[in-house]
Order: sequence, then structure tokens, then C-alpha cells
Amino acid sequence: MSAPVIPKTQKAVIFYESGGALEYKDVPVPTPKPNEILINIKYSGVCHTDLHAWKGDWPLDTKLPLIGGHEGAGVVVGMGANVRGWKIGDYAGVKWLNGSCMSCEECELSNESNCPEADLSGYTHDGSFQEYCTADAVQAARIPQGADLAEVAPILCAGVTVYKALKSADLAAGEWVAISGACGGLGSLAVQFAKAMGLRVLGIDGGEEKKKMFHEMGGEVFLDFRLEKDMEAAVIKATNGGAHGVINVSVSEAAIEASTRYVRSNGTVVLVGLPANAYCKSEVFSQVVKSYKIVGSYVGNRADTREALDFFVRGLVKSPIHIVGLSTLPEIYEKMEKGQIVGRYVVDTTK
Amino acid sequence: MSAPVIPKTQKAVIFYESGGALEYKDVPVPTPKPNEILINIKYSGVCHTDLHAWKGDWPLDTKLPLIGGHEGAGVVVGMGANVRGWKIGDYAGVKWLNGSCMSCEECELSNESNCPEADLSGYTHDGSFQEYCTADAVQAARIPQGADLAEVAPILCAGVTVYKALKSADLAAGEWVAISGACGGLGSLAVQFAKAMGLRVLGIDGGEEKKKMFHEMGGEVFLDFRLEKDMEAAVIKATNGGAHGVINVSVSEAAIEASTRYVRSNGTVVLVGLPANAYCKSEVFSQVVKSYKIVGSYVGNRADTREALDFFVRGLVKSPIHIVGLSTLPEIYEKMEKGQIVGRYVVDTTK
Amino acid sequence: MSAPVIPKTQKAVIFYESGGALEYKDVPVPTPKPNEILINIKYSGVCHTDLHAWKGDWPLDTKLPLIGGHEGAGVVVGMGANVRGWKIGDYAGVKWLNGSCMSCEECELSNESNCPEADLSGYTHDGSFQEYCTADAVQAARIPQGADLAEVAPILCAGVTVYKALKSADLAAGEWVAISGACGGLGSLAVQFAKAMGLRVLGIDGGEEKKKMFHEMGGEVFLDFRLEKDMEAAVIKATNGGAHGVINVSVSEAAIEASTRYVRSNGTVVLVGLPANAYCKSEVFSQVVKSYKIVGSYVGNRADTREALDFFVRGLVKSPIHIVGLSTLPEIYEKMEKGQIVGRYVVDTTK
Amino acid sequence: MSAPVIPKTQKAVIFYESGGALEYKDVPVPTPKPNEILINIKYSGVCHTDLHAWKGDWPLDTKLPLIGGHEGAGVVVGMGANVRGWKIGDYAGVKWLNGSCMSCEECELSNESNCPEADLSGYTHDGSFQEYCTADAVQAARIPQGADLAEVAPILCAGVTVYKALKSADLAAGEWVAISGACGGLGSLAVQFAKAMGLRVLGIDGGEEKKKMFHEMGGEVFLDFRLEKDMEAAVIKATNGGAHGVINVSVSEAAIEASTRYVRSNGTVVLVGLPANAYCKSEVFSQVVKSYKIVGSYVGNRADTREALDFFVRGLVKSPIHIVGLSTLPEIYEKMEKGQIVGRYVVDTTK
Repeated sequence: MSAPVIPKTQKAVIFYESGGALEYKDVPVPTPKPNEILINIKYSGVCHTDLHAWKGDWPLDTKLPLIGGHEGAGVVVGMGANVRGWKIGDYAGVKWLNGSCMSCEECELSNESNCPEADLSGYTHDGSFQEYCTADAVQAARIPQGADLAEVAPILCAGVTVYKALKSADLAAGEWVAISGACGGLGSLAVQFAKAMGLRVLGIDGGEEKKKMFHEMGGEVFLDFRLEKDMEAAVIKATNGGAHGVINVSVSEAAIEASTRYVRSNGTVVLVGLPANAYCKSEVFSQVVKSYKIVGSYVGNRADTREALDFFVRGLVKSPIHIVGLSTLPEIYEKMEKGQIVGRYVVDTTK
Repeated sequence: MSAPVIPKTQKAVIFYESGGALEYKDVPVPTPKPNEILINIKYSGVCHTDLHAWKGDWPLDTKLPLIGGHEGAGVVVGMGANVRGWKIGDYAGVKWLNGSCMSCEECELSNESNCPEADLSGYTHDGSFQEYCTADAVQAARIPQGADLAEVAPILCAGVTVYKALKSADLAAGEWVAISGACGGLGSLAVQFAKAMGLRVLGIDGGEEKKKMFHEMGGEVFLDFRLEKDMEAAVIKATNGGAHGVINVSVSEAAIEASTRYVRSNGTVVLVGLPANAYCKSEVFSQVVKSYKIVGSYVGNRADTREALDFFVRGLVKSPIHIVGLSTLPEIYEKMEKGQIVGRYVVDTTK
Repeated sequence: MSAPVIPKTQKAVIFYESGGALEYKDVPVPTPKPNEILINIKYSGVCHTDLHAWKGDWPLDTKLPLIGGHEGAGVVVGMGANVRGWKIGDYAGVKWLNGSCMSCEECELSNESNCPEADLSGYTHDGSFQEYCTADAVQAARIPQGADLAEVAPILCAGVTVYKALKSADLAAGEWVAISGACGGLGSLAVQFAKAMGLRVLGIDGGEEKKKMFHEMGGEVFLDFRLEKDMEAAVIKATNGGAHGVINVSVSEAAIEASTRYVRSNGTVVLVGLPANAYCKSEVFSQVVKSYKIVGSYVGNRADTREALDFFVRGLVKSPIHIVGLSTLPEIYEKMEKGQIVGRYVVDTTK
Repeated sequence: MSAPVIPKTQKAVIFYESGGALEYKDVPVPTPKPNEILINIKYSGVCHTDLHAWKGDWPLDTKLPLIGGHEGAGVVVGMGANVRGWKIGDYAGVKWLNGSCMSCEECELSNESNCPEADLSGYTHDGSFQEYCTADAVQAARIPQGADLAEVAPILCAGVTVYKALKSADLAAGEWVAISGACGGLGSLAVQFAKAMGLRVLGIDGGEEKKKMFHEMGGEVFLDFRLEKDMEAAVIKATNGGAHGVINVSVSEAAIEASTRYVRSNGTVVLVGLPANAYCKSEVFSQVVKSYKIVGSYVGNRADTREALDFFVRGLVKSPIHIVGLSTLPEIYEKMEKGQIVGRYVVDTTK
């Protein structure tokens, strides 16, 4: 493949201070460092984290000015001198973990997302809300050729995150997983991954339409929080003793606390959402006597990413998306703020 | 060995209602069921749980009237018709889990202490504060012949409990374990087991005398809560990044919450004490980003018991005890209430 | 339910010396010991192990005279005084492990089938080729009410065995498992369990009919040993690097050795068949450099049995059986000797 | 620290064809690639693998001409433009795995030594038998400042290898590990690591002197292969049922096969030596019924290296070495060929 022509400038959505104006404008195309590839981003998913990055309400500083976005799917168009294992034209993905130190204990053990020097796309490193984005060659996602770049985008963060959460629950095929918030953006991916992993899926959400959607995705038992008087008893009954694992996609403190009560003895409650200033509370007596675990699960590592992409490519997980132009990003943020998002928005960087 | 002569009555400490008088008196010697052995208890440890059983302040009813005690060490003097694998004269121990259903999921997986029908010594089954006690033949502890029956008594509950907690922390030799409350009855056993398991031990407790005792037991770093201004920073510094595991022997809510902040990324906080009405609180954002676990650890199973006894018999764990007569039990309870217990009291059932 | 009337005698197939005549005749109905249930066997699967038990060619003595059979499904009609958790009318199964000591290290850890004193149905304990059979109440399989007792019979040994083998391979959903002998009695169950566990299944067997059957069961890649010139290369290519796990249902030494060459680095080769006098050979250099495991997997424990039955009851695993009368057992043995068995024979004890 | 002066040429031991002359001569100092550091090697251990690399008798080609050596300890004196996390003056080690692709499945999972493109020091990459050696910055060992560079050298391969083998045996503190070849170069390190990990150590070797040395290192039971008539029975008796794990440091086929017979049920036999053309044979029936594992363990990864070094720095593992000049390397090879090596030779690169 002949080397692609890379322009000097490009369109991006950028902001200069936390919560400041989201400007759709021309910015310089970045130059990859020796260890980086340059990706021509075709599509990027929009995640709730992007809203936190913009508002700056997490206990972790962003770079400023910042171009957000960490679910970018595109094509490799350049690379630094020290890059191995990539070639021009490969499909590549920008994920939350852009790069890490590769020398700390966490990196040694493939837990790169827990690296204290983790470089985060759309947070400490300009992200995928631009046409050309740089990514560390080791961490960039390897998207199989032929994948639909719009549909694959949300797998790069939302998909990997719920897949990793399911792995963190350490369940065997045939065991029950409860997914609290089963029909939202993350939840619907979680239901599909869980099904593909041979788990029995109980979903908690509200409304007839969601119930229908849940069963279409392969879910087995749906419990409607609008109708159940005693959710804990209902889960315990439906699962014949409590869920072996719980994935708390919902970020409600009350829902999380409830999950500590309907989890089975020796089971696992997984925390995966990132609400600001929220706590998980468990009754000590009960946690000891039931010997259950509460586990924090962050984004997946390179293997988790490869595996999650593999489930997607094999058609076992579908990603219901709305494609809009990058220039409309401010409107999507507004909808997110108001809780009006259904499904996953994906921006087309050319529009 | 000729069959021992078993009397009709014996001395015991019994109470007839929660918090009622603790009467030292003659009661009938119990008859073992087909699946039970009859143990002539020589010594029994006294545990904080015995106080809860007497007061009735846990969310689980006791039998009444009740003979407490669940750290009883003695000699097999009789058995039911269906007992296998025991003979008259064997050393045997009464532990917290007297028996279980053997047919539920938890029992199938050797998690008998999590059995919903668990029968608990000194709680739902008359315990070891009597000269003759019955115990399910499957669950009764097999104490190696020649062991000192007074010193081994506290291993049957306190020892097994902290040993299981250390196993629940899932640590590799060479990793750091922090023990909060390192020099109390449970803590001092935990320090010794941890040392024998090849772990590096950081202890948190107060006072010069405790510091000295801690280092004599093989502990490496002692942090005095009376002197440290910022315990979290101190633990993180001493362990070069946070403890890989934390054993919360202390039942203070504040100490437990602190442990969620000084645990290392991907590490494990173990809850093992059983305070009434206490909660464990963790910040969700931090638990996700650091991906640490909070695990409830209850008493050990049969294998944990055998293993803990083995460490004791090999001389790797010593149990500092005070031997007093069974008749003085009410005074020990009073001291426990007042927090005046140092080390472990063991009652001689013949006095 | 009123107590069932139990006859004094019953039909059974019995032999008096290894390889001696298989006599279909009246024998006394056994009396359950205090820890046993008495099961009215309705159907029993016939397993290759039954042939070994009769011939006496394994390095482990059988009782004599012996009534074989260890895949018996029926109804509880009596029980000993010490039995808990069963009631008359429950569905129950006789499996290979009839009972164990419950006091050794292996039993403590739920590995009861590895107990040195394991009591084996149809081997050291009269088995399910009779109308009424005794079984230890702890080990007897709990068959859900409503299950088809003929179809469930082979799950009790063949099903549990391959399910346990798959668990021993320690695979994650989405990984490749190769099943060598994919379309025989054990293999076809293995393919179905593997599929239900979310694994990608590669099957090795011979012939177009088997290929068709394999894909109908959900298998993904079929390799015909009659057509492949280089099976190792073919497996490695089809799985993009080697199978993560291999289940050696085939008992051919050459096939087993081949599996050590097409397993992936850090993967697992599972031995599960029980050929007499056969060896597994692996090249040390290659096993070290590829760091793969070779694991022996015996019959499952109580939890494995419950789980395997659950997959069956949920309709995820089907068991293709031929029902014949118990009196025809000698003819089935003859067919087994000649290698003429297709699918699984199940005997109706009433005929 | 001011930049060190790096000469143009240096002393090395080099050979131009497999089994050819080992020439001690001046060669150019290599230039680090962008991802590499340049280490001034002070000392290098000599390993049996170096002999195989020189003879070329393994099924893997070496580069030619070749400078051997993969246990080099020294000081960082230069680095490529893309290196992070190292500075001039740091202590660094050259280990067997010099570098890997960082993009395959094995690398993703921290199993870099299983990477198909693994670059091996002293095999496919010029090694530590020279004064200045290059190493991939990610894989180079981080030796704590202050360590004795001569004594630490053998930890970089021999130490890490046996430590990883012990981890591969997956043992809990208090369990029995048998070390076959307990008092050789690898074996003596294995005994010390095992002891530090809380394991009970049984050693197999020959002679009174070795017995004494074994017990001085903390070993518990020594079995002399010259005196034991039935080694399998002896191990099983001494360990009360068989070793939970076996580390086959000995490369004898007979010793390896014996280890499959004295390992405990559900235990693990570890293969770690790399004999040419040797096989491990296990009886299938017995491996299934006892459900034990045979595991290949290769060199450790970055975390294993850090951990093994930590045990050394803490003084828990001592490395008995003989220091000689680099120029005498041909004589050491000769001794190795003749099996005359006792302990570990370390070469001083300045002589």
C-alpha cells in the first residue's frame, strides 16, 4: 500500500477549559512519537466518561486544551520509527488506555490500565474526536480487517469494559449473572456478552419495551424495578439462592447496595460504573457470613480487548448505534447531561 | 483401648435466656446421634463470639437454653452407629461449624460454613463449655495425637479463622499483608500464620510493648496508630505502593474504611471480624480504578482446619493462653465486655 | 406419599468371577445402610467401564460376585436412619462414585472421587444393573423431578465425566477446544457441553456422516482423520495457533501424543479416557518452551454432577440413546468388545 | 550522573559456527536500538543453556556468529531514544528473554517468554559474555541498587527459572514440594526459594555432603537415591501421601517418570530442565484416577524476575558462586560437558 497523504490540519472538537465551549474547528494533525501509530479515525463512540472529562468532576486532572473521545475506530496512516507489528492500512482502535509506562508492577502483570502513569485517550492524551489521532503502538486495539468501523467503535470501550466486568465476576458457564441496568448502552452489551459466555442472565430494568428487548438479546429472567416490591427477594427466588455474580452497570448507590443483598454466598458483586462521589456500602456481618466479594473492574487490557472484539466479529454481540456528525457532539453532550441517551451515539469524523 | 466410662451428668455453664444468668451446674451428658462423636472436652477457648451468643445481639437466633463454647479440645469417648474414621481415644476438636446439611451447593463445594442449615457449636448446638460435647463426625476437627490440648484450643476457631482470612486474601509469598489490630488475640495469630506463609507483615496497633511483641513474632513493619498522622500514606510508603492484602481483625468501621485506601491496586481487603451493625464503605470511583477486592471471610472448612492445626503442630504458630477453671466463665465474659482481655482465655472443664 | 412396597427379590445381571457368565436372574433386594438410600432403578446406561469391571483388566480389584452399572436413574423408595435431605419419591441417580470416606484430604476438598477408599458403583459396590440399588445419601445424584429417566441416565457418568474434563481444561468462553473422538458416545456429549459453555469447538473424527452430526451439535470446525495428512498443522491453522484445550476422548496413544503437539502455548491437554496399559508421552523440551499442561480428569464431584444435570434439564445437551431390556446386557457387552456401539445403550430394568 | 564514556571496542567471547572455537577477543561495542538500553556487564553467570547454544543441539537455531550469556548483571550506560523508565547508572540485568513482539497473545498476557518471536540473549541476540550488551528496555531486569552484581547474576536465569517453576506448581504454604536434584546449581536455589515460600521441602540427591548442605538450606526430608530401594514409596511415606508438587530439576527421564508416581492426587509435576530429545511418560490410567497435572515451566516473566530478585535482596536466597575471568570461559564449558560443575560459575567481564 502506498503511503497515504496526511493533511496538515483536520477537524476536531476541542475545549480549552473544564466545562468550556466545545469548539468544532481546524486543528493541526498530530505527529506520532517513535512508539506511536497515527490513526485516521473514521468513527468514534461517545461515552459518559467523555462528559466527565469535559466537566472535570472526577478526582483526576485532564490535559487542557483537550480533544476528547476514546472509542475511535480507523485506519493506520503513519507510525513512529520504533513501531513493530503494524502496517499502513491496518484497522486500529483508540481505546481509553492510550499507553502506559510498561515498567511498573501493574504493567508487568498486564494490568496496564492500573498503571499509575496511564495515559488516557480523551483525558490526558488528545482522543478520537478528531480525524487523526495518535496511539501507543502496544496499546492500540487491533481491529480485524473487514469489521464495520462504525459498529465496532463502542466495543472499544463500552464493550471491553462490560466484558472485563463479566470476567472479573469469575463465573462458570451455567451460573446466574444479574445485570442491574440491563437495557442501557452498557447493559445491553453486557447481556449479550454474558449470553455468549454461557451464563444465565437476569436483567433488572424498567418497562415493557425493555423487557422485550432483553429477551430478544437472550436474557432469561427480567425483573422490572417499577413493579417488584422486594427486588432482593425476587432475585433470590428467580436464581434459586441469589445471583452468582452481579454487574452493576447502574451507578445508583441504592442499586449497588441492594446487589450486596441478592448476591449468592461466595458470589461476586462487580463495580464497573464510575459515578463521582458515590460509595458502595456492605453490611460487614452479612458479607462475612455469606463470604461474598465486591470487586472493582476497570477497562480491560489488550487481551480483553482482543477477546471482546472477537465476540463482536463472530456476530455474538451487536452494537445498536446512532451515527451522527462529529460537529454535533455538543448536542450529544447535552442529551447525556439530561439522561436522554438511548443506545450509543457514534460520530462520523468527516461530518 | 477399653471403652471409657461415661458419667450420666457433668459440669457445664448454661444460660436459659439471652443475657440471663450464666449458671455453672450439673447437666446431663448428651448422647451422640448416629452421625456424631462424643468428646470429653479437656479445654475450651473463649471467643468474642461467645459473648454475642449469650447477649443475642446478632441477626441469628441461638437455641435456648444454651451451653456456649466452640473451641473445645478433648478426647473421643463415644460415637454413633454410623460414624466412620474415628476411634475411642482419638484427639478431637469442637469448632464453630458443628455440622451441615451436606447436600446444598455450599456443602458440595466444601464451603460448609456457608450452608444455610449450618449447625453452630455454642450457638445452635450445645458447645464446649461442658465436660462432654457432641459433634458431627464429618466436621469435628482431627487434632494430632500428642498436641497440647490447652494450647491447641484457640487454634480451632481463632487460628482457623485468621488462617482462612489470609487464604482469602489470595497472596503470594513475598507480598505485603497489613494486619489491622496486629497484636490482639486474633491479630497475633494472624501475624504468625502470615509469617509462616512467606508473607511480609505490616502490623497496625498501638504502644511500644505491642511493637516489641510484633517484631518478636516475625512482623517486619509496625505502624503505631497513636503516632502516625496519616496512616494511609504510611502504609503505602512502607509497602512501596500499598498492601497486597489487608486482614481487618479490628472491627472499627473507620479502620476498615482506611484499609480500602491503603490497599494496593488489584489487592484484597479481607473482612473477618463480626461486629454487629457495622458497614464497610468504599469509594466506587477509587475501587474501580484501583480494581481492588473486598472479601468476606468466615470460618474455615475442614481442610483449612487441618492445615491450621498442622502449622501449630509444627511449632510455627504459638498460642499465648491463660488457663482458668470453667466455673470462672462469667468473670471472663465480664472482662470481655469491658475490653480487658489480653491474649486468649482457655477454660479447664474439670474446675 | 405412602411408603412404597419393596419386594424381597428382583431381577439383576450378576457375574461370579471376572469374565464369567453374565447371569440375568433373581437376587435379593439390598437393604440400605444407615447412610444410604434405596433407589428403584428405572434405567441404567451402559459404559465402557462396565466392560473393564467384568473383564477385570484394570489395576484395581472388583468385588465378586458383582452386579455392574453406574449410570442408574430411578426413584427413592427407602433410606437408612441417618439420611438427611432425601424423601421417598425423589428422583435419584447412581453414579460411579457411590460413597467415600468423607474424612481424608481429598474428601475435605470435594475431590471425593480421588478418595483412597472410594466405593465405586458396579465395581466395589453392586451397581445399577438391578431393579433396586443402594447409594450413599451424600453422593447419590439429585435428579430434578420431571426429567426423562432414560435420557438422563448417561449424563450421570458419561455426561459428568466430559463436563468435568472441560472444566479441567480451564478455558474461557471464546477459546478453542479440540475434541479428539468428537462423535462417539462421550465425544458427542463433550461437543454439546463445550458449545453450551461458550467455547469454539474443533472436532476430530472420521466420515461425512459424523461431520454432519458434528455441525448439527454446534461444532465449528471438523477435521477428518481419514483425510488430513498433517493433523497437527491442520489444528494449529484452524485455531490460529493451536487449541487452548484438548479433550482426549479417544484412548489412542498416538492421538493423545498428537494432541501434545497441537495444543497452544500455555494450553491444556486433558486425559479422560481410561485405557488399560496406555501411556501419554510428551517431548520435554517442547512442553517446557510452550509451557502447556497435561491434566488427568476423573469423574466429577457432587457439584459437577448437579451442574451437568442442569445443562441437560435446560435442554442444552441431548443424549441420543437406545433403550433395550436389562436381560440383553450380555449382547451389549459383546458389541462393546467388538467396537460396534454407536451412541449410548440404556437398559430398562423391568425387561 | 554525567554520561559514561563508552569505548568503541571491548572484550567478548565469540564463536563463528556451532561447536566452533570460543574466541576471547576484541569486538565492537553494540549500539542500542531506540527501544534498547546499553548495559556495561560486570558479571555474568554461566548456564547449561550456554553449552546447548554453542553446540547447537536444540531444535531452535542460534544466530551466528554468537556471543553467548544470559545472566549478565551490570550498569546502564546508554539507551535508545524511545526508552522510558531507565536512567544512566541504574543496575540492570540481561536475562534469557531479551525482548519480545509485545503484540501477540502471549505477550498480551505477560507470557512474553512464550512469544513466537522471542529474542533470546546469548542465542538469537548477542549476550552477556561481553563487556557491553544491549537489552530491550521493557524486558531488561531491574536490579535493586546496592545488590552484589556477582552474586545476583545467577538469579537472573537460574533463580528466576526455579522460582517460576515453584509458582507453576501452584502450591500453598505448608504443602510438600519434592525437588529432584536438590543440591545442584538449580536445585539448591529451588530449595531456598521453596523454603522462603513456606513450603515443606523434600530433596532427592546423593551423598552425605549433599544431605548436610540440604538441611542447612532449610530442607526438611532428604532422600538419597543411592540408598533408597523404593524411592516412590519413600516419598509417599515421608510426605504422608505424596508430594503436592514436584520440581524436576534433574533432566533424567527415569527420574521424571518416577515423579509422576510419587506425586499426590491432584498434585503437580513440573518440568523445567531442557534436555535434548527427552520424553516425559505418564501412565494414563493412573494420571486420570489421581487427577494430577504435568506442567511445563519456562523462564519467568518480568514480574517473576522482580519477585525472585526481591527474595535475593532480602537475603532469603543465597547464590554460591565461583568468580573467574571471562577469558576462561572455554574451560568452564569443558567442565560442564564433563559434568564437573559444582555450584555456579560467574565470569568477571574485565578479566
